[in-house]
Amino acid sequence: MSSVSITDIEAAAARLEPAAIVQRTPVERSRSLSERCGADVHLKMEHLQRTGSFKTRGAYNAISLAVEDRVDSAKPPVDRVVAASAGNHAQGVALAAAGAGIDATIVMPESAPAAKIEATRGYGAEVVLRGSAFPEAMAHAQTLIDEPGVHFVHAFDDPDVVAGQGTLGLELLDQLPTVDTVLVPVGGGGLAGGVATAIKARSPETRVVGVQTDGASTLSESLAAGERITREEPDTIADGIATGGMSELTFGLLQAHLDEVVVISDDDVAAAILLILERAKQMIEGAGATAAAALLNDDALDELDLAGETVVPLLCGGNIDVTTLKEVVTHALVERDQLIELSVRIDDTPGTMGEIATLIGAERANIRTVRHERSRPDLPVGDADLVFEVETNGPAHVDRVLKAVREAGYEVEWTTQEA
Amino acid sequence: MSSVSITDIEAAAARLEPAAIVQRTPVERSRSLSERCGADVHLKMEHLQRTGSFKTRGAYNAISLAVEDRVDSAKPPVDRVVAASAGNHAQGVALAAAGAGIDATIVMPESAPAAKIEATRGYGAEVVLRGSAFPEAMAHAQTLIDEPGVHFVHAFDDPDVVAGQGTLGLELLDQLPTVDTVLVPVGGGGLAGGVATAIKARSPETRVVGVQTDGASTLSESLAAGERITREEPDTIADGIATGGMSELTFGLLQAHLDEVVVISDDDVAAAILLILERAKQMIEGAGATAAAALLNDDALDELDLAGETVVPLLCGGNIDVTTLKEVVTHALVERDQLIELSVRIDDTPGTMGEIATLIGAERANIRTVRHERSRPDLPVGDADLVFEVETNGPAHVDRVLKAVREAGYEVEWTTQEA
Repeated sequence: MSSVSITDIEAAAARLEPAAIVQRTPVERSRSLSERCGADVHLKMEHLQRTGSFKTRGAYNAISLAVEDRVDSAKPPVDRVVAASAGNHAQGVALAAAGAGIDATIVMPESAPAAKIEATRGYGAEVVLRGSAFPEAMAHAQTLIDEPGVHFVHAFDDPDVVAGQGTLGLELLDQLPTVDTVLVPVGGGGLAGGVATAIKARSPETRVVGVQTDGASTLSESLAAGERITREEPDTIADGIATGGMSELTFGLLQAHLDEVVVISDDDVAAAILLILERAKQMIEGAGATAAAALLNDDALDELDLAGETVVPLLCGGNIDVTTLKEVVTHALVERDQLIELSVRIDDTPGTMGEIATLIGAERANIRTVRHERSRPDLPVGDADLVFEVETNGPAHVDRVLKAVREAGYEVEWTTQEA
Repeated sequence: MSSVSITDIEAAAARLEPAAIVQRTPVERSRSLSERCGADVHLKMEHLQRTGSFKTRGAYNAISLAVEDRVDSAKPPVDRVVAASAGNHAQGVALAAAGAGIDATIVMPESAPAAKIEATRGYGAEVVLRGSAFPEAMAHAQTLIDEPGVHFVHAFDDPDVVAGQGTLGLELLDQLPTVDTVLVPVGGGGLAGGVATAIKARSPETRVVGVQTDGASTLSESLAAGERITREEPDTIADGIATGGMSELTFGLLQAHLDEVVVISDDDVAAAILLILERAKQMIEGAGATAAAALLNDDALDELDLAGETVVPLLCGGNIDVTTLKEVVTHALVERDQLIELSVRIDDTPGTMGEIATLIGAERANIRTVRHERSRPDLPVGDADLVFEVETNGPAHVDRVLKAVREAGYEVEWTTQEA
């Protein structure tokens, strides 16, 4: 079985550096995460990589190698690469192919967000939309690769791709040689496999921890079973790691080199996205925030015991879909009592709604929606509940609004308050 | 009248640097904005300043000077500063006071977002909540400053604060001496006044352009009138520049040193926030994105004629309120046809809603809300309109959904489509 060694990763680094398609990304200390874990937390800002994720590393290494390999071969030279992707691999392959001076055809499912399709086209690739989900796109891509001169680039089941992703580990050790623990998100295992191989070869005392969400926790299940477990329908806000499983190649690397695995929740991921957005002012997508999210999960922190360590979560992508961002932000507003529902019992006569809306407005709270509930079985005849969705500045503001409505003689309930 | 000179700004820079409370912030080239304007656009990333905005510069300079001034004076030493703010000035003063080793009392209106209140307290300041809006907070702050040892720090009407903000201009010239045009947002005029003074003294051929939104365009009105014009109720998504006007001090500096002023819209600001979020992966607040937004406004671009120039918009703050972020994101989704409304005429019998919802779901479009409209005057008796709010991947996806519903025999209208 082909595998990946530190020599492959060092060769990839030597290939990537002079080409300057892939950039060195910064490492920045996070004050808020350091305080949160009692550790010295630095963020590896790989979301600032060109195309917004680490995928360019593996794609460029694989494409360069394919082109080199054919130079002295009897086969025709590679002049086109094909890939299938709903996400960051599409953009990574598109830019890497442009950088290597060859054409790219990327098959994406019709469900891919328009912004990602446009970005991929923006790097000069031909985009073919096929199928409602990834498996159909992948099947179509397979029909395009039998022509001479065409090379297929898999998102993670390719040793050259994995070696390219591993350069992120070498780069980090170079920037922060004293790092004690590196946290890496695990989807198909290309990034984690490459980074773990690189770090354990160069700095064996550095701990490498894989992180998954509970809706896509195939790695912990596979390690426990001693064999690869896949999931038909992984379900996580971190769509970049919702691959449903690893390959033999990447699972083998992870079995050999990973020190630990922790499993966290989508809520942790949403909280991490928001914390990094509000404090570090950086936009990280779900999969990209998964490693940092482990630092917000109490069970994971107990398990890892990071106190006093130098810790680096890899922020490996920033291409969040705007629909997902809206969900994360709305969730946060509800959690902080900045988007609440108030239910006011009224006798359903003209003018009442205006009076209550005026009271709420006078407290400078903004009404987003209002509806009448008349069908509840406990409602006296002729009464109704007016349900207001209101924007506030937080719990203290809600209390002022409640007080104002109550003092006007109305029965009001804060229906979205947590118990 | 006291004013601000390049000597004051140089002295401020000399004061700020060794204290290391204020950081040097990076300048990064923007590929997408460069392409958009046919210019070489670099972003001054001042939102990465500690406290998330430039305000720390002015606050630290003013507080240091107040402390120094009293050392050889007969007056008691300064041991507390007072400020009034609903925004970034609160955090700037709080951190600067902590850095200077003295106490801070910040008066904030009760309407300030809970996150900003917490952040200010997090820097060690005492926060007093007073009044429903800024003027009442300011009035209360004035009652706290008559005690010995107390120094008041105004957000912009203070030459020491303006000199501190001006250090941003010196820093930029040091980082990018070839800059042709610098774009600065204008609210109270402290940042713009300081930066314009610094840049025109050191590099007179560099053009300094002030940017305001049309809901708070007091500068262009004041320059046209030749005297300060204020607005009772400025209305803009860029809340950091919604001051209602400048001071005599800052207006004087802007009259003397600013080359041009452009006025843009809140839509431009929202588009700039989103572009920087999606492309540069940076979180910028409304006022912080106002300068960059000028590069998305066709009239402003025509007026400025930037072709071939090296251009720098100052991204001066990143403390966006989550409620505002949700508005920006929702607006973008609607504009991109990723959040649409479909109205389907039905004969209001059991099972119809389920059938249509199933058709929409089969196209992998997500239904957010649904409502029945039965009160429209043109509705035949017994008919109703079912209005679905649906999440899609963009216009092509909407077309597939429309086709599926139509092919099942329903009359369907895309009600949120632009003409």
